[in-house]
Amino acid sequence: MITKTRCLKSMLASKELDFIMEAHNPISARIAQESGFKALWASGLTISASLGLSDRNEATWTQVLDIVELMADHTSIPILMDGDTGYGNFNTVRRLTRKMCSKDIAGLCIEDKVFPKLNSFLGENQQMASIEEFCGKIRAAKDSALDDNFCIVARIEAFICGKGIGEAIKRASAYHEAGADAVLIHSKKNNPSEIFEFTNEWAERCPVVIVPTKYFNTPTPLFREANISCVVWANHSLRASINAIKDITNEIRKKQSVASIESKIATLNDVFKLTNEFEVQEAEKLYLPSFDTV
Amino acid sequence: MITKTRCLKSMLASKELDFIMEAHNPISARIAQESGFKALWASGLTISASLGLSDRNEATWTQVLDIVELMADHTSIPILMDGDTGYGNFNTVRRLTRKMCSKDIAGLCIEDKVFPKLNSFLGENQQMASIEEFCGKIRAAKDSALDDNFCIVARIEAFICGKGIGEAIKRASAYHEAGADAVLIHSKKNNPSEIFEFTNEWAERCPVVIVPTKYFNTPTPLFREANISCVVWANHSLRASINAIKDITNEIRKKQSVASIESKIATLNDVFKLTNEFEVQEAEKLYLPSFDTV
Amino acid sequence: MITKTRCLKSMLASKELDFIMEAHNPISARIAQESGFKALWASGLTISASLGLSDRNEATWTQVLDIVELMADHTSIPILMDGDTGYGNFNTVRRLTRKMCSKDIAGLCIEDKVFPKLNSFLGENQQMASIEEFCGKIRAAKDSALDDNFCIVARIEAFICGKGIGEAIKRASAYHEAGADAVLIHSKKNNPSEIFEFTNEWAERCPVVIVPTKYFNTPTPLFREANISCVVWANHSLRASINAIKDITNEIRKKQSVASIESKIATLNDVFKLTNEFEVQEAEKLYLPSFDTV
Amino acid sequence: MITKTRCLKSMLASKELDFIMEAHNPISARIAQESGFKALWASGLTISASLGLSDRNEATWTQVLDIVELMADHTSIPILMDGDTGYGNFNTVRRLTRKMCSKDIAGLCIEDKVFPKLNSFLGENQQMASIEEFCGKIRAAKDSALDDNFCIVARIEAFICGKGIGEAIKRASAYHEAGADAVLIHSKKNNPSEIFEFTNEWAERCPVVIVPTKYFNTPTPLFREANISCVVWANHSLRASINAIKDITNEIRKKQSVASIESKIATLNDVFKLTNEFEVQEAEKLYLPSFDTV
Repeated sequence: MITKTRCLKSMLASKELDFIMEAHNPISARIAQESGFKALWASGLTISASLGLSDRNEATWTQVLDIVELMADHTSIPILMDGDTGYGNFNTVRRLTRKMCSKDIAGLCIEDKVFPKLNSFLGENQQMASIEEFCGKIRAAKDSALDDNFCIVARIEAFICGKGIGEAIKRASAYHEAGADAVLIHSKKNNPSEIFEFTNEWAERCPVVIVPTKYFNTPTPLFREANISCVVWANHSLRASINAIKDITNEIRKKQSVASIESKIATLNDVFKLTNEFEVQEAEKLYLPSFDTV
Repeated sequence: MITKTRCLKSMLASKELDFIMEAHNPISARIAQESGFKALWASGLTISASLGLSDRNEATWTQVLDIVELMADHTSIPILMDGDTGYGNFNTVRRLTRKMCSKDIAGLCIEDKVFPKLNSFLGENQQMASIEEFCGKIRAAKDSALDDNFCIVARIEAFICGKGIGEAIKRASAYHEAGADAVLIHSKKNNPSEIFEFTNEWAERCPVVIVPTKYFNTPTPLFREANISCVVWANHSLRASINAIKDITNEIRKKQSVASIESKIATLNDVFKLTNEFEVQEAEKLYLPSFDTV
Repeated sequence: MITKTRCLKSMLASKELDFIMEAHNPISARIAQESGFKALWASGLTISASLGLSDRNEATWTQVLDIVELMADHTSIPILMDGDTGYGNFNTVRRLTRKMCSKDIAGLCIEDKVFPKLNSFLGENQQMASIEEFCGKIRAAKDSALDDNFCIVARIEAFICGKGIGEAIKRASAYHEAGADAVLIHSKKNNPSEIFEFTNEWAERCPVVIVPTKYFNTPTPLFREANISCVVWANHSLRASINAIKDITNEIRKKQSVASIESKIATLNDVFKLTNEFEVQEAEKLYLPSFDTV
Repeated sequence: MITKTRCLKSMLASKELDFIMEAHNPISARIAQESGFKALWASGLTISASLGLSDRNEATWTQVLDIVELMADHTSIPILMDGDTGYGNFNTVRRLTRKMCSKDIAGLCIEDKVFPKLNSFLGENQQMASIEEFCGKIRAAKDSALDDNFCIVARIEAFICGKGIGEAIKRASAYHEAGADAVLIHSKKNNPSEIFEFTNEWAERCPVVIVPTKYFNTPTPLFREANISCVVWANHSLRASINAIKDITNEIRKKQSVASIESKIATLNDVFKLTNEFEVQEAEKLYLPSFDTV
């Protein structure tokens, strides 16, 4: 059977460069799927932000998971969930992993910082987890997954925390050995120098995932040359929606009317299509007696 | 003290035409507040849709309320919550009302159809609640509110269900008498004829709220002339976000790059501002010892 | 594979009389399993009551399901969930069914009254659902289950609502034909006359489940003779806990001391055993580096 | 107005010895109130255990708070919530505090260990939080409370973690200075020697709370002599329910009948009384039209 976990696993393992699109709720997830993306990034930053919460684990993992569950219900492509630092210790990671498996979420990405996490683009000298402790989390996640194809992506914050290539490679090796299906190497530079330094040195020992939020100008062919496995567009869907909501809201506010904006926004029919309204209408014919007979 | 309930109550009572903007999550709520709106509409349709669910009470009221609570936490203007049919009977309405009060949500709008509801723009011959039962809900809500200024808006679906002006006025009178702070008269026509027929006949016996989703082209001065109290722009924020997410997602998909769209979307700094990130950074100085000393 | 759904299905189908024990939270569920019961009844009444809510659907189905999910996580025997009237229409039943399947809950029992339900032992002249509408719910549940062995038990409230044997049999036939795996015939008499009238007439057309809360004095061999499939002890675990908590609480209150009650209550070690504490301690050795090295 | 926070505050401040009873769900909370207790302890251990989870923060704070909210809804006496280590850093404590205030929970107890916590009676050499960091949490809680009378109880785990009286007093002083309304001194000895060593040395600089789970045999007058402010009976209600459920479940299992146990357990009427069923029946007369007219 082609499961979501299997899809994500082969996407990570394949030699081709693949792309994973951020979503922060079920409707943005469905839109990403319909536009042709083959996998989704359930972003800690954007899910928190949509809830009005800062990217510091203000939302608990059960709150985040409730949303990612609905995202998985509403799509058929795999979701890689941004699990921040794993929300605690190895035991929290085990619980999270098991619940993710039963909710058909295909993979978990955890990062080697301490709980509660801080966004990687904020704050200097963030504190890293010990390698031994983080490897314990990776092994605990692998051992507790209900599905052998459930993927663990180990995110390395060495560059983010001001460490060099030595620390990054040392951690990547340990995480790979502990069972990670891929490593995610992160950088807050606005150029890909750290990333390519890493991929050179790493030499494809296991798949590499990147998040080019800051070095967005880097031409994609360079990622292919560097043998990157997957690129995560990690927050662009939410950021697009913010600007659109700002613009429309300001225009409505000023004009005291929606007449001029009606043609610029999705129709109600679009909304109904994205929420399976018409499927329910068909089901009514099967299951609901006509009002006359009730 | 100027509470949110008091603000909503005076907005409903005032002779001026006011505008209430839809929001479906805390971030869209904050954007609407920052653009100058004085009140928010927590829409059943758009909150459900953002969760990937159809507008048929697929989301339970506790799921919806969890989101509206976060919206109220993240804004300082009153929220009028779209409570559909009240999610059951008078007793469900009492529980909903009490929980809304403790979550600082300023008002509840309930409509005179049966649970589970169906979107007003779908389906012919929808079934109406009995007047007596619906008045019981209104009285139950008023009596159980923890705050005297908590507002009940009674939404009349007579036109939606194919009834005429007689039924609409009869219901409006009963609901007003039962204690509703305002009536919301709804129409699915693409012109305001039903609305103005109602306002003429009603003659300001209590404040009137409208939702011009279908008759969006009607010039706003006509609403003023008709002595409408409030206009609800009921779904435009979500609809704006859908188109924006579609456009950006498609562009990223095709170009396999975010370089060209970076300037079109909100910055990460915008995201951080909208989620109080910088307030937490200030608080760190007060409450968090430096990493060195930990 | 021996799944929970398969276990429940064969328990319903078997010629032997089986017993299903009520639980209202994960710890009472685990205790029932450890005492040897082969299946659990997740009772609407007792789950609501433990939450301080009346048995009138004051708790939403998502609130109830959150608890039943934890019960399923914490046990290995099948759970038959009391789904009241299905919390709405056919569409609500579909959503509930799908979510139950993904949470490894083995079967759903729905009853033919209207939402919000009222406890069967309260109120005269309760209103029944139309047969056609209720059959639509049964078919919708069967069609939407993710697992063919997921069980639907159709609960007949004809006797509860003051109807006679004719109505009960008519409904049982319709529900059986619509796909129910078993019917549950309920009675509020303090003797089993209605039940045996039904089983005589029904003549094993499909398995019959009963809930002898009011006719508790009936000797169990009589149920066997009547070819009952399963007996549900529907609320006894909660009722036992209430008396025990009352007694101990009163004693502590009066004596201003716990010295005299220590030997009457479970030890902390019992609590730790019932919550897998010692499993986590073993796991620590595998996954958690010693504190010295952190 | 006599608020719950005010009640708790004066109970802590008063010279009389008071008693706080554990509850793990709304029904046990109501029973404790009805037996005459003046305050409740929402225990992390017993709430987790009732959910089938170990006392290691397997339940997130939002899951725990959902239950404590229902406990507060269902009682009129103050609740002191066991907040473990505060579920993260100062910022998590701020969010928790604010949400508790809006849910009418009167006070928060936090302990000076690291997240995720481990039960105080398990494991040697548990790790303590730094004093400076823990004081930051106390100040953050006090500053963010929406009500000046919201109480913060600082729990000192020095004895639990193998430290001596010096460390305990040093921490108590720091926490008192940081704004704690009371300190809770904990001990896992089966005699009160550590407790009395502390109270002697502390000399009533601020109110002292104790949890005599292990030294349960100590006569209560000795606590009065030691000028203890409050005794928390921290887990006895759950432990009573476990034994009762075990006994009844085993008896039903063996006898295949409930006939012999009916008189030993609470009646259905008791259940209905504890869940406000009869209040809803009264309300029906006010708000629900008779079935005939619907």
